[in-house]
Amino acid sequence: MPARSIRKLTLVLLALLVSLAGATAVFAADTDGEATLAGDPSADVNMAWTLTAAFLVFFMQAGFAFLGAGLIRVKHTVNYLKKSFMDFCMTGLSFWAFGFALMFGGSAIASGMGEGNALVGFSGFFLAGEAYDVTTSMFWLFEMVFAATAATIVAGMVAERMRITAYLAYSFVIGAIIYPIYGHWVWGGGWRAGLPFGSGAIDFAGSGVVHAIGAMIGLAGAKMVGARTGKFDETGRPRAIKGHNAGYVVFGTFILFFGWFGFNAGSTVAATELRISVIAVNTFLAGAAGAVAALYIGIARTGKADILAACNGSLAGLVGITAPCAFVAPWAAVVIGVLAVPIQQSASSFIERKLRIDDVVGAFGVHGAAGLWGLLAVGIFADGSYGGVSGMVAGEFGQIVAQLISMATVTAWGLGMGFAMFWVLKKTMGLRASRQEEIEGLDVAEHGIEAYPADEPAAPARARA
Amino acid sequence: MPARSIRKLTLVLLALLVSLAGATAVFAADTDGEATLAGDPSADVNMAWTLTAAFLVFFMQAGFAFLGAGLIRVKHTVNYLKKSFMDFCMTGLSFWAFGFALMFGGSAIASGMGEGNALVGFSGFFLAGEAYDVTTSMFWLFEMVFAATAATIVAGMVAERMRITAYLAYSFVIGAIIYPIYGHWVWGGGWRAGLPFGSGAIDFAGSGVVHAIGAMIGLAGAKMVGARTGKFDETGRPRAIKGHNAGYVVFGTFILFFGWFGFNAGSTVAATELRISVIAVNTFLAGAAGAVAALYIGIARTGKADILAACNGSLAGLVGITAPCAFVAPWAAVVIGVLAVPIQQSASSFIERKLRIDDVVGAFGVHGAAGLWGLLAVGIFADGSYGGVSGMVAGEFGQIVAQLISMATVTAWGLGMGFAMFWVLKKTMGLRASRQEEIEGLDVAEHGIEAYPADEPAAPARARA
Amino acid sequence: MPARSIRKLTLVLLALLVSLAGATAVFAADTDGEATLAGDPSADVNMAWTLTAAFLVFFMQAGFAFLGAGLIRVKHTVNYLKKSFMDFCMTGLSFWAFGFALMFGGSAIASGMGEGNALVGFSGFFLAGEAYDVTTSMFWLFEMVFAATAATIVAGMVAERMRITAYLAYSFVIGAIIYPIYGHWVWGGGWRAGLPFGSGAIDFAGSGVVHAIGAMIGLAGAKMVGARTGKFDETGRPRAIKGHNAGYVVFGTFILFFGWFGFNAGSTVAATELRISVIAVNTFLAGAAGAVAALYIGIARTGKADILAACNGSLAGLVGITAPCAFVAPWAAVVIGVLAVPIQQSASSFIERKLRIDDVVGAFGVHGAAGLWGLLAVGIFADGSYGGVSGMVAGEFGQIVAQLISMATVTAWGLGMGFAMFWVLKKTMGLRASRQEEIEGLDVAEHGIEAYPADEPAAPARARA
Repeated sequence: MPARSIRKLTLVLLALLVSLAGATAVFAADTDGEATLAGDPSADVNMAWTLTAAFLVFFMQAGFAFLGAGLIRVKHTVNYLKKSFMDFCMTGLSFWAFGFALMFGGSAIASGMGEGNALVGFSGFFLAGEAYDVTTSMFWLFEMVFAATAATIVAGMVAERMRITAYLAYSFVIGAIIYPIYGHWVWGGGWRAGLPFGSGAIDFAGSGVVHAIGAMIGLAGAKMVGARTGKFDETGRPRAIKGHNAGYVVFGTFILFFGWFGFNAGSTVAATELRISVIAVNTFLAGAAGAVAALYIGIARTGKADILAACNGSLAGLVGITAPCAFVAPWAAVVIGVLAVPIQQSASSFIERKLRIDDVVGAFGVHGAAGLWGLLAVGIFADGSYGGVSGMVAGEFGQIVAQLISMATVTAWGLGMGFAMFWVLKKTMGLRASRQEEIEGLDVAEHGIEAYPADEPAAPARARA
Repeated sequence: MPARSIRKLTLVLLALLVSLAGATAVFAADTDGEATLAGDPSADVNMAWTLTAAFLVFFMQAGFAFLGAGLIRVKHTVNYLKKSFMDFCMTGLSFWAFGFALMFGGSAIASGMGEGNALVGFSGFFLAGEAYDVTTSMFWLFEMVFAATAATIVAGMVAERMRITAYLAYSFVIGAIIYPIYGHWVWGGGWRAGLPFGSGAIDFAGSGVVHAIGAMIGLAGAKMVGARTGKFDETGRPRAIKGHNAGYVVFGTFILFFGWFGFNAGSTVAATELRISVIAVNTFLAGAAGAVAALYIGIARTGKADILAACNGSLAGLVGITAPCAFVAPWAAVVIGVLAVPIQQSASSFIERKLRIDDVVGAFGVHGAAGLWGLLAVGIFADGSYGGVSGMVAGEFGQIVAQLISMATVTAWGLGMGFAMFWVLKKTMGLRASRQEEIEGLDVAEHGIEAYPADEPAAPARARA
Repeated sequence: MPARSIRKLTLVLLALLVSLAGATAVFAADTDGEATLAGDPSADVNMAWTLTAAFLVFFMQAGFAFLGAGLIRVKHTVNYLKKSFMDFCMTGLSFWAFGFALMFGGSAIASGMGEGNALVGFSGFFLAGEAYDVTTSMFWLFEMVFAATAATIVAGMVAERMRITAYLAYSFVIGAIIYPIYGHWVWGGGWRAGLPFGSGAIDFAGSGVVHAIGAMIGLAGAKMVGARTGKFDETGRPRAIKGHNAGYVVFGTFILFFGWFGFNAGSTVAATELRISVIAVNTFLAGAAGAVAALYIGIARTGKADILAACNGSLAGLVGITAPCAFVAPWAAVVIGVLAVPIQQSASSFIERKLRIDDVVGAFGVHGAAGLWGLLAVGIFADGSYGGVSGMVAGEFGQIVAQLISMATVTAWGLGMGFAMFWVLKKTMGLRASRQEEIEGLDVAEHGIEAYPADEPAAPARARA
């Protein structure tokens, strides 16, 4: 029973809570922040900046909700929104209990995060004990919203046919294990950051750590759950299945773009790093250039100004600039954004036409392919103007080696863990809604309501008739 | 005549304006902020933080608009949105003219706020004279958006049948009198803050001051205006009346959650209080835990993953953590969020089934019951790690006494003033739309438009036919 | 061919990019910000503030998208959203390539912006060379989102009949030339700022520079493209053509209001200017007062509480306070907001009934007339409490002369350049969709999709039948 097993997990969690409650009070570090501020007079402005950025990244969840809801059919809308809403809750809780400790244990970025090795961390569970600290809490919030972003990417890829219980289990696992372990390797002091090429593997704000990981896991999920009924015809050719609200797609993209400023510029975790302005400029330019590139490609190909393509192009540009945003010049951001679009579009087409995987919202192209492109772009366009990271345009060829290793690792880890997890879920709780439920719509089947109920005539109105 | 009486009020306001204009120029305090910054070098970062938080809280108005619009029927949508839009305008203006002076007069929190006693304040009207000051203005903006939040909670409770003119009058009164006087007692240096138990009544960001007050007034309003036609059958059993857009409910919840970070973490009114990170973490965890708890309860009871319940559960968790957010550890935030849900659900059920009050959006459970729970939770979970506030988990039993007194006061004041005000409005301008208007929909009756007009065929199109 | 000519432009851009790439690396100024922070210890908080404000202004794009989408008919919704989404992308890129250099060259506000004269600037192209700097980047982002705001105002005025290709060309030109040259005169050290009256022409956050310019260009566009088929009857009387979603109008207004705090309070480009709190208060009060004024006017005239009028009234108040927000007292903000409404409504009526120009969303009244009112209001209400700007209430009569010159200039420049540009576009690529396309809807004609596609029955569902 999925519900039962999740409930058991909750009980374990609660038991842990109680036992950790004592530890929290006793071993807490700086809980009012006075010592921290005395030791670092810039701690206030850096905290204000980082928290504000975290709030913006949190708000991207609303963007994903809008975007995905617009791209799917009416009858599955509630189901999609439910997944989109619950995944950040589940992931946030599992990242609090386990994920953060696995990811940043051993990094020594803040109080209570001292224990860990090159493969995995193991301190800071439940933000208890010495991790009950103002700086550690700030890091946790900022990192948690990134984990939640990775998690929610999958919702659109498995939409319209995956059961909600399987999806919830997945959300817990990605936040507890899959996302943090990979993240540990790159951001938590793990082996990838120590690669002996260039500055080691560099992924400033998570083209790989967040976007590509989410997309790889989602690809595994979409493959394991199978295509939607009717997506491919008898000969295996894909059919276009239209979403239900083009406006939602645009609103969602606006919200994502807005939040992305926090995603990238907040990743300095410090306003004293004035480079944040260049990061924000690069973020904007790549997103705008991606939209314009997608527009032109669409007009050239079909004569139509495809709005969905422009939105996805914009997002591909944003994903592409996420890893290199701190290390490149504005002109390079434009080039990275423009090139992200054919990469995204080719990848989406390849997935659909060659692999015959049904990625409902096209997230693999946007987050997966453009995410890998972002990692590569660091090795090409980093100009040495910040943090000592230099790529080919600055005459250095070592960095791109580290980036290529990064690209291979993220692909292998994401796909490998994704397939393993969804295989287990398939064998235990089952992944897929029944054909009947799928045809009638998951909203009524799993949630008991429609997205847009018509006005019920109240009793007196009926009496009028 | 409602419109006429409101116009008279406006004239009085304008006359006051003119006479105060002179005073403003003459007695102004620090209007360019140079002296303030010279006296407190952290004034810039604290102001940036507080204003940013205020903007986020302002944006919660959009969340309430979405949420409520999703939960009501198509034919009343414009009416609800109008109320939701106008209430923050009316409340903001009345809080500027009167409310702020009543609430913070005597608190000496900033220039021009010196006069007041334990029951009510009386300086700072119209932000004129010595209240024309950069620090006072900062406080005003932050406090005003809280008043507006309390006001808008009522919109959903009296939706689909209260006349817009009555609602506008209510909005003015809550911002001018009801909200600020209670607020004065807790935050403005009034008698409640001075209770000789624990640290006095503690309500960090307003579980009681904002949420419970709004819900109590709304309960009085919902009772006085009566249930919607058709809500209860002949035997008094409630009927479910579905809203019209489940997506709006989710989008609204996302926006509210987003804004809540400003609501809680901004309530330090200072980024130099690094505790803001712990506050933000607690806010997130309680909201996420509430959603997950509601999900499990729903699945256990009905087998369906109810999206509306999850959204309300999340909001209940957020309301519950609002008072204790600064004083508890993350594990306690999870517990507070989880427990908020059965409290919210039981209260909503009690209101509907036992009291037979028609609370359209279920706001009493979310803001009222969970608000009281938040006050209580301070007395239980405050761990002494910040501001010297200690509850039962820290071995102190005095605080909970202050909190219980707080809970009783907020209930009595909110219900008492709510019934008094709505009784007066009922006798003077009338509360309720006619049965005919209600059945046809308030949109056409009161606003002359439908929420979703169909495309009108233009003349030539008609000619085509 | 529009598409072809735009593509050529892109090629030129890319060529420029490559040639400038070298320059960027060699002549870059402070790219990591260490020297800047060492020279100005407040640079971090000012940058955090300015960037956060810029993000909020960016988000106003979503507000414009919602607002306009709500006010137009279903069949043109995708087209409007596409324009609204692409215009900030196009304008942002052209402002990066050319506009910023024309606007701020010679202002010496930051590194690389040294060359320019009283009429136009000419340094800082592509943020290359010495303009590759953290402070310059911060300014660019903040100024770019303002340019994008000016651009998007036009979308609603020419909605439902202008071809997307013409609109994209316009977006490029406004960001590259029209907006920046006018902006140079006021904000970039040009001749208007040096007028020998009062403090010279004052427009704090852009009532004129942003809003009136956008509206004037839009008026020219609406005139040149002609009215929608069916808008005016045979005798020239306007017909009301309803939009399709009143909710979107309200949501859009909320988002715009939210972003406006960044627009106005961010325009100090410094949190160390504590006046930001007064600015935010004034912004709120004017917006709220505008909504309330519009509500009362509507109830007095028609007995209906018109929600669209209230939203537009709120926006008119916000536009009106944009120029004077930093220089007036709160009471004056209320007066400015109230008076903005009859000005806005009269102007909209005049445009429609006398000039018979079809301004679909009523943007001329909101942004044009209220924008001019904002410029005038500086000369009346500035009270000398900040920056030495004094108007009539402070007994100074010189300022209003500078403001009147400003009002004349912005009108002449906006209309003149607007007509010139749209005339050229009309003669070269054509402005207007065909009558057939207009009647069937631009969505299918230009974009190949509908805004709200119905669920397609999948194959097996069809088999069921």
